[in-house]
Amino acid sequence: MAAGAMTGAESVLRTLSAGGVKTCFANPGTSEMHLVAALDRVPEVRPVLALFEGVASGAADGYGRMAEVPAATLLHLGPGLGNAFANLHNAYKARTPMVNVVGDHAVAHAPLNAPLASDIASVARPVSHWYASARDARSAATDAAAALAAARGHGGGIATLVVPADAGWEASAGPAAPLPVPPPAPVPQDAVEAAARALRGGGAAALLIGGSATRGRALRAAARIAAATGAQLIHDTFPARLERGAGIPRAQPLPYLTEMATEALAGLDHLVICGTQAPVAFFAYPGRPSRLAAPGTAIEVLAGPREDVAGALEALADALGAPAGAAPGADAARPELPDGALDAAAIGAAIAALLPEGAIVVDESVTASAPIVAATAGAAPHDWLTLTGGAIGQGLPAATGAAVACPDRPVLSLEGDGSAMYTIQALWTQAREGLDVTTVILANRSYAILDFELSRVGAGSGDAPDGGALARGPAAEALFGIGRPDLDFVGLAAGMGVPGVRVDHAQGFAAALREALAEPGPRLIEARV
Amino acid sequence: MAAGAMTGAESVLRTLSAGGVKTCFANPGTSEMHLVAALDRVPEVRPVLALFEGVASGAADGYGRMAEVPAATLLHLGPGLGNAFANLHNAYKARTPMVNVVGDHAVAHAPLNAPLASDIASVARPVSHWYASARDARSAATDAAAALAAARGHGGGIATLVVPADAGWEASAGPAAPLPVPPPAPVPQDAVEAAARALRGGGAAALLIGGSATRGRALRAAARIAAATGAQLIHDTFPARLERGAGIPRAQPLPYLTEMATEALAGLDHLVICGTQAPVAFFAYPGRPSRLAAPGTAIEVLAGPREDVAGALEALADALGAPAGAAPGADAARPELPDGALDAAAIGAAIAALLPEGAIVVDESVTASAPIVAATAGAAPHDWLTLTGGAIGQGLPAATGAAVACPDRPVLSLEGDGSAMYTIQALWTQAREGLDVTTVILANRSYAILDFELSRVGAGSGDAPDGGALARGPAAEALFGIGRPDLDFVGLAAGMGVPGVRVDHAQGFAAALREALAEPGPRLIEARV
Repeated sequence: MAAGAMTGAESVLRTLSAGGVKTCFANPGTSEMHLVAALDRVPEVRPVLALFEGVASGAADGYGRMAEVPAATLLHLGPGLGNAFANLHNAYKARTPMVNVVGDHAVAHAPLNAPLASDIASVARPVSHWYASARDARSAATDAAAALAAARGHGGGIATLVVPADAGWEASAGPAAPLPVPPPAPVPQDAVEAAARALRGGGAAALLIGGSATRGRALRAAARIAAATGAQLIHDTFPARLERGAGIPRAQPLPYLTEMATEALAGLDHLVICGTQAPVAFFAYPGRPSRLAAPGTAIEVLAGPREDVAGALEALADALGAPAGAAPGADAARPELPDGALDAAAIGAAIAALLPEGAIVVDESVTASAPIVAATAGAAPHDWLTLTGGAIGQGLPAATGAAVACPDRPVLSLEGDGSAMYTIQALWTQAREGLDVTTVILANRSYAILDFELSRVGAGSGDAPDGGALARGPAAEALFGIGRPDLDFVGLAAGMGVPGVRVDHAQGFAAALREALAEPGPRLIEARV
Repeated sequence: MAAGAMTGAESVLRTLSAGGVKTCFANPGTSEMHLVAALDRVPEVRPVLALFEGVASGAADGYGRMAEVPAATLLHLGPGLGNAFANLHNAYKARTPMVNVVGDHAVAHAPLNAPLASDIASVARPVSHWYASARDARSAATDAAAALAAARGHGGGIATLVVPADAGWEASAGPAAPLPVPPPAPVPQDAVEAAARALRGGGAAALLIGGSATRGRALRAAARIAAATGAQLIHDTFPARLERGAGIPRAQPLPYLTEMATEALAGLDHLVICGTQAPVAFFAYPGRPSRLAAPGTAIEVLAGPREDVAGALEALADALGAPAGAAPGADAARPELPDGALDAAAIGAAIAALLPEGAIVVDESVTASAPIVAATAGAAPHDWLTLTGGAIGQGLPAATGAAVACPDRPVLSLEGDGSAMYTIQALWTQAREGLDVTTVILANRSYAILDFELSRVGAGSGDAPDGGALARGPAAEALFGIGRPDLDFVGLAAGMGVPGVRVDHAQGFAAALREALAEPGPRLIEARV
């Protein structure tokens, strides 16, 4: 390469930087060395190291949900992408804007079956809205520009660009100009009119909001519509980012359990889908429906996830003559600090009382979530991020990334103990970067959700071997209980540089939470529930 | 389902059990509940819980390498398989016998785009020698029998069987009979004769052994050939399982670094490939070759990984008239216990002095490995397991699985600090199961290999932007150093129930190693090097 020429790696990074990428969550290896060297030449992109790729991808998810511009990840061939996969799956379901840069073997080396050779495309495709492998150093920047447009366009998505090592180390043609970002597709007037007819009819109706409709303009317009028509306002069970709290329009969560969700949707004449899809059960169960809306409910899709749901909801509100500015907000409700036994309700009450305005809550508290959600509806205004793809191990990384994206906002990370252990390495990145994250581990020393699900998958359906509930025998005991040996989360956090405290009653929890929220930097509270 | 009928899940598990599967490394979810219930009905299969799927897959790899029968894994849909991917990649490259059982949504639920829906086949194929998704409960056991035959046949491999939830919960036709296990393919006489001609010619020659040729009958036959012909005996850089130590035929490792590997293979007239493939570089580097044998070296493939390499080597030894029983073993060499500074050489000396006969060493010590390997060549006889696929995070899980497979043999797990953090959760499973594993963390507080590689990928080739070595700037500093904050491995281990000690000089290390090896159950030594 001529002295002074720019490498392909640098051309890729400069292209991403020019298009708005400011952060790279990284766990690189040898095949990414020129991309690392490029990070040294492009100081506008901040490298954030993760000790495990699932932390990098989950952090990029949390970052993208809050920043609304993509972070990059830097990953090491197929196995690095594999380690990132589960949290890429969550981000894929959330349509978080994200650009994965995955190193690969040099083009001539790839067919030789070296130890790290694998079919990267096959791993990438299930979690990528856009995928390409750069052909060479001269075209890599053009691919990077296309990746970025795909990640930002149509409401956001996951773009994965593979950069073979030689495409990184050889001479490039320089950075590529950013491409236009395709906006979300406009919603046809027909869809607005159909939804308006449904809501004018006078029958029982609900709006189901998801995707980008759970915040901002879209949420306010949805609330105007609900107030003007009497329709219920329901949000997806696991929203990517929900604005909620005192003064913010209040939507009801669609319950997780099939039987509760079908009950919540029972008796509706019309269900209007806004930014999401018609509701389906999280899992199938013997004898229970997968589609949650009642058979007699007419479903109108106002806008899917790639469409301009905010514009569509505003048009719909106008068409219905809903008064502008008339979206009622949730009442403020700051309960007394709890006392007594420590359970999810007490934790919810303490959070509701103490949560600072503008906080970001990352909720992976699994079986404890519902009482906490209920208790915090009237807390100070905040954002609520959830497990969009059901792949546990997202909470600690997403909290990490959200804190990088929003250094002026406190982050509260609510974690089940089982879930926490998937990506516990995130605590180290929080300590390293001095991130203002308070992690609450809800330690019940079990995969409680599985205990519960075991009884549900067979119970009452006649489909269990004995026609009744599945029995919990020693194998289930061995696979659901994680209290032998007991996990010491305070010790684990200390081992990664995060100070922590263990509490086992409500008053102690409230005191610990108050202190943690008041201090900068990461803290961990192990709540023994 | 009729009362008393067997579920599809139970038919799958009984089929695996009848075919020799005794252990299931599991991290299940709701879609696998009937498989969990089946584990309660088939007590012949021992469930071992992992807190993260990468621990389960790595443990199954370590188990399969030592037991030579497959363990099962139990994984939760695409994301669970994704978490397992990197260690499945290592096992795939090792051709470890293994059966992955992956739950999926019920067949009718799968197309509805529920949160956990994804393209499981796409993730599975790059790490599966055999793949199928069960169509229904009546055929699932037949699929399980085929999976097991594929995992055991032709020298071993990874079989992945997806079991949709309804294929698990509906009525089966009962277990399927085990299928015949296809033996490794016989090696044609032509290949034996060609290798014999090459070795008789009198030129410089070497045998490169890999796959199953690094142990047992095959290793002994290779050593007979080397002794009779003067050929060098070289083993793959990263063997799946190498028998070594005092009295066992000694092979030289092919060095990791391209320049050292090409030097080790320079000047050969003939290179005979036994149970592996012609040697290729781990990574490509600007201006360096990917194929490691010299251009003038004639390569004879005696047997590939799916062929009967032991039979071929014995036939070759006989054809060459190599005396039976004449395979010389390595000399015993138990050094004095080291003193002074703690470095890889001192650690190697302590291990060489103290390693018990029959120990299993799992080596993921990365940059520290070469001196330790050199120091332990004359230690008491042992097995040495390495990182076949280059995806770090394999050591702690593989040690876990090896200890489950061989409860009467001590396991020594040599781990880099960076590598350890990928799957640190394995320590908890070691504590839970009371496994006799001594983990040594070689804590240099950096990804030292990357520092080294950064200088290599550009150095001297003229391909770095400035025509020389890539400079290490602040981004590289941020991405290679893991000492800020310092990781406290003794604290992390204690948090998961494993007692540990920190040492920073050679004498202390030797004392800690002696004590750890003498005690049953897991121990951790953080060696500050």
